[in-house]
Amino acid sequence: MPRRPNYRLPKIPEMTVRRLSVYTRCLQELEEDGVKTVSSQELAERYNLNSAQVRKDLAYFGEFGVRGIGYYVVGLKTELRRILGLNREWPVALIGFGNLGSALFHYRGFGRQGFRIAAIFDDDAGKTGREVSGVPVFATRDLAREIQARGVQMAIVAVPAEAAQSVADQLAAAGIKAILNFAPARIRVPRDVRLKDVDLSIELETLSFYLAKGVR
Amino acid sequence: MPRRPNYRLPKIPEMTVRRLSVYTRCLQELEEDGVKTVSSQELAERYNLNSAQVRKDLAYFGEFGVRGIGYYVVGLKTELRRILGLNREWPVALIGFGNLGSALFHYRGFGRQGFRIAAIFDDDAGKTGREVSGVPVFATRDLAREIQARGVQMAIVAVPAEAAQSVADQLAAAGIKAILNFAPARIRVPRDVRLKDVDLSIELETLSFYLAKGVR
Repeated sequence: MPRRPNYRLPKIPEMTVRRLSVYTRCLQELEEDGVKTVSSQELAERYNLNSAQVRKDLAYFGEFGVRGIGYYVVGLKTELRRILGLNREWPVALIGFGNLGSALFHYRGFGRQGFRIAAIFDDDAGKTGREVSGVPVFATRDLAREIQARGVQMAIVAVPAEAAQSVADQLAAAGIKAILNFAPARIRVPRDVRLKDVDLSIELETLSFYLAKGVR
Repeated sequence: MPRRPNYRLPKIPEMTVRRLSVYTRCLQELEEDGVKTVSSQELAERYNLNSAQVRKDLAYFGEFGVRGIGYYVVGLKTELRRILGLNREWPVALIGFGNLGSALFHYRGFGRQGFRIAAIFDDDAGKTGREVSGVPVFATRDLAREIQARGVQMAIVAVPAEAAQSVADQLAAAGIKAILNFAPARIRVPRDVRLKDVDLSIELETLSFYLAKGVR
């Protein structure tokens, strides 16, 4: 068993956290392929990672490697999932049930990692007061009541840009502690709320950069 | 004017490219606020960036700063947009017109950066043979013909996981050079095709990490 991890979190870069998610996926795949142990070099080669970076990222949380063996695939995966908070289920509120909200609701990746959309909110009265695959759709004005009743701490914002700040304010007031924002708008939140903006066009820009340069 | 950038691309980390996109957005906002010049420190403070990182990232491409002045906001923004390939329009093919494809089609962020969805493809005969906001929807089997006719080099994949590899193969055969993959499946592409996987649950995991630790 690895030594108990040591959390000194303010020093951990967000990119390290992001890479832990990637490592977890690689380990999951190795497990499915029946691989029992893997070295940082093998991990790096197979998944096009940087082995020194892998070791540095993991070192924030403890000593997971065993000399002459490498990492135990299942053990490390389990430990990383625990560090990422994926050893439990997170109920999530989804605000906005248009095209994007609908797509996010059906996105299978969330549920696979333990994120369960527990309540949907929309301003369109035509969409509220019913259930979608067992999940209730409420009017946005009932947000605080329903979020508190369900003990929800995370929210996904998929409303139009012009509504995003008002929704974020309501979420913060309702006690939400983490917001994933898909609205193409910059929103501000109180210091005790963690905000992550998803800007899908940035993903395309990393591609156009390489195409523009003729380098792939 | 900054010195002409010097492209030695294989050394440029993808995270640097990603940050250029972020800097471009910050500069756009500064421009809208009427700010003419900005130092790396001011940029870092206002947008919660790392000023040494800003300087290092920009240094890959030339010397943009002017001693005692900092960066010219509009000049630097224009230069970064050119480096990112955003000084032109990119026609993009969208494969898959379900909830997610539909949401991506209506996502305003793409068009704002010059990415124009030029053709949509879907296997559902009920969706093909018509136009959506002026954009034709074709059967996936016509992909090669329509992509070549339009000179499209970029594609967004928003099909179910089980169809993703087959679509990627068809895209590569059709001459597509960059793929943004939203399907929750790992796909393989030839070496001359640039692939970017978007895994939306990773974004939620960076949030659950902080919630799980009680650190925000």
